[in-house]
Amino acid sequence: MSALTTELPVRFADVEAAAERLRGVAVTTPLLESEALNALVGGRLLIKPEPLQRTGSFKFRGAYNAIAALRPPAVVAYSSGNHAQGVALAARLLGISATIVMPADAPRTKLDGTRALGAAVVTYDRATDDREAIGREIAERTGAVLIRPYDEPLIMAGQGTVGLELAEQAARIGGRLDAALVCCGGGGLVAGCAVALTHEVPGIEVYAVEPEGFDDTARSLAAGQRLRNAVDARSFCDALLAPMPGELTFAVNARLLAGGLVVTDAEVASAMRLAFRHLKLVIEPGGAVALAAALAGKLPTRDRTIGIVVSGGNVDAELFADVLGRAA
Amino acid sequence: MSALTTELPVRFADVEAAAERLRGVAVTTPLLESEALNALVGGRLLIKPEPLQRTGSFKFRGAYNAIAALRPPAVVAYSSGNHAQGVALAARLLGISATIVMPADAPRTKLDGTRALGAAVVTYDRATDDREAIGREIAERTGAVLIRPYDEPLIMAGQGTVGLELAEQAARIGGRLDAALVCCGGGGLVAGCAVALTHEVPGIEVYAVEPEGFDDTARSLAAGQRLRNAVDARSFCDALLAPMPGELTFAVNARLLAGGLVVTDAEVASAMRLAFRHLKLVIEPGGAVALAAALAGKLPTRDRTIGIVVSGGNVDAELFADVLGRAA
Repeated sequence: MSALTTELPVRFADVEAAAERLRGVAVTTPLLESEALNALVGGRLLIKPEPLQRTGSFKFRGAYNAIAALRPPAVVAYSSGNHAQGVALAARLLGISATIVMPADAPRTKLDGTRALGAAVVTYDRATDDREAIGREIAERTGAVLIRPYDEPLIMAGQGTVGLELAEQAARIGGRLDAALVCCGGGGLVAGCAVALTHEVPGIEVYAVEPEGFDDTARSLAAGQRLRNAVDARSFCDALLAPMPGELTFAVNARLLAGGLVVTDAEVASAMRLAFRHLKLVIEPGGAVALAAALAGKLPTRDRTIGIVVSGGNVDAELFADVLGRAA
Repeated sequence: MSALTTELPVRFADVEAAAERLRGVAVTTPLLESEALNALVGGRLLIKPEPLQRTGSFKFRGAYNAIAALRPPAVVAYSSGNHAQGVALAARLLGISATIVMPADAPRTKLDGTRALGAAVVTYDRATDDREAIGREIAERTGAVLIRPYDEPLIMAGQGTVGLELAEQAARIGGRLDAALVCCGGGGLVAGCAVALTHEVPGIEVYAVEPEGFDDTARSLAAGQRLRNAVDARSFCDALLAPMPGELTFAVNARLLAGGLVVTDAEVASAMRLAFRHLKLVIEPGGAVALAAALAGKLPTRDRTIGIVVSGGNVDAELFADVLGRAA
């Protein structure tokens, strides 16, 4: 019983405070719905499109919330790209210098986007270097505060504003959410969203969705403890390649989630094509896993209303064109 | 002086009435802004993304407004695709049967989309058949009311709700619109938007934007009379291939517009790529001409705030992938 009474690292009030900090700064992304996608699943999909967020992903929300709350003299972050751009823009808006540690093989659009936002970029080799150690070294040397990508209450609270808006916007159009699907790398977005959604929508089932090979949260939820992904796992969902659940994110997710769902790269590519066609939205692979889970029937959708978080759209033109060209 | 005192076929009150009919039915598309695009033009671009509208273009607004106001027993329409889908969905929502006359070489996504919305589709040869005659024949034979694509006050008023929302949303974020750019085929969208924008934003300059070879409105505005495009003109902006300005749309546009701007197919393709990268939005060629005009410097943008109507996103995957692959 003790687990049920322990306080979570993020509470609903923290998400509300984040929403207040982000007012007039973050985009209140609209809630999208497509006749065609609804017909495909026999239910109602209410889609929250964070590609339309500043920097092209939800990551700006958490980064701005953390930096605005902490107001450090400088910041450093390590990221495959979306957190990088979020931190870079948030720091610039708040007049704080930022250094970002990024893998050398990150999508070019993410590397270029981060530099264009005025951050200093330090690249590393994903296979041989330890990005956390590099980030810590820069923090110690320059006095910058490390802005973690997910395992930090202020980050989770900021990402949770996606779930808060989803709940409010769905209620406004008379949609009663039976479930919500949220992509999951380190687990910060789904943790924050779960805090907001379970508070606002009693009885809602919130699922983490992960790409095949990186289903650490699904397996950890089933096992009741944090498990790692295989070191040789590969996926084209570059935004979701965290090695294992965060300590704080898993504490939230183990308590609030209904479970984890897993999708293949082919299912993700199909969802990207359907979003191109019916939503007119550019979604990156990691941003499309939740939509892919609904379209591939990984949970019951008939006559149900499902909230879907589409988390980002920072995908290189070459890869996007390649996905469009693949057989459906 | 008589031209200045003649009443226009569409007044601001007609746009307000359309907004009332569309409330809770059409999507109030958000207003988007990109740090990167603003930096490119040295000003502020406030972008109204109608690809996020139901059926993927603004055409749903006018179609629904007209059919909801007229409540005919059945409707027929001729269209290269976007008006087709708009009429098909509007008719279905209002419980009215629809027949759509479409060119056989229309983008597959538009043909399929129209059929999927429950309309009967009749195809014709763009080079040899007269689509207006085919539409009239069906109307006479079946008793259906013809829903014109642009030269109809209820259609213009419905499209004008795009401009009304643009004015309201820009004001809400403190943006004072110096100019607005709106794509122009037959001229219904820009006419409706001009009625709304010139009423709401005193002193605003509203421009029609057309693809090279189909600059009939630009030339007609300069000449003070309606002029035709060359019969052998070609453009990949399939949504904007009207042969000459409409009679009613030109009456409005000649009075309210600041002028016409013209963009090349290459400038349009470049705008589509920049929208992919920075807005995460799928835009069809005809939907991107206004954005292309701003990005290609067809009017002064430095330190100005420019409203941009992006009108639709119904583009085939093959063409979109091809545009992404072209050199910038």
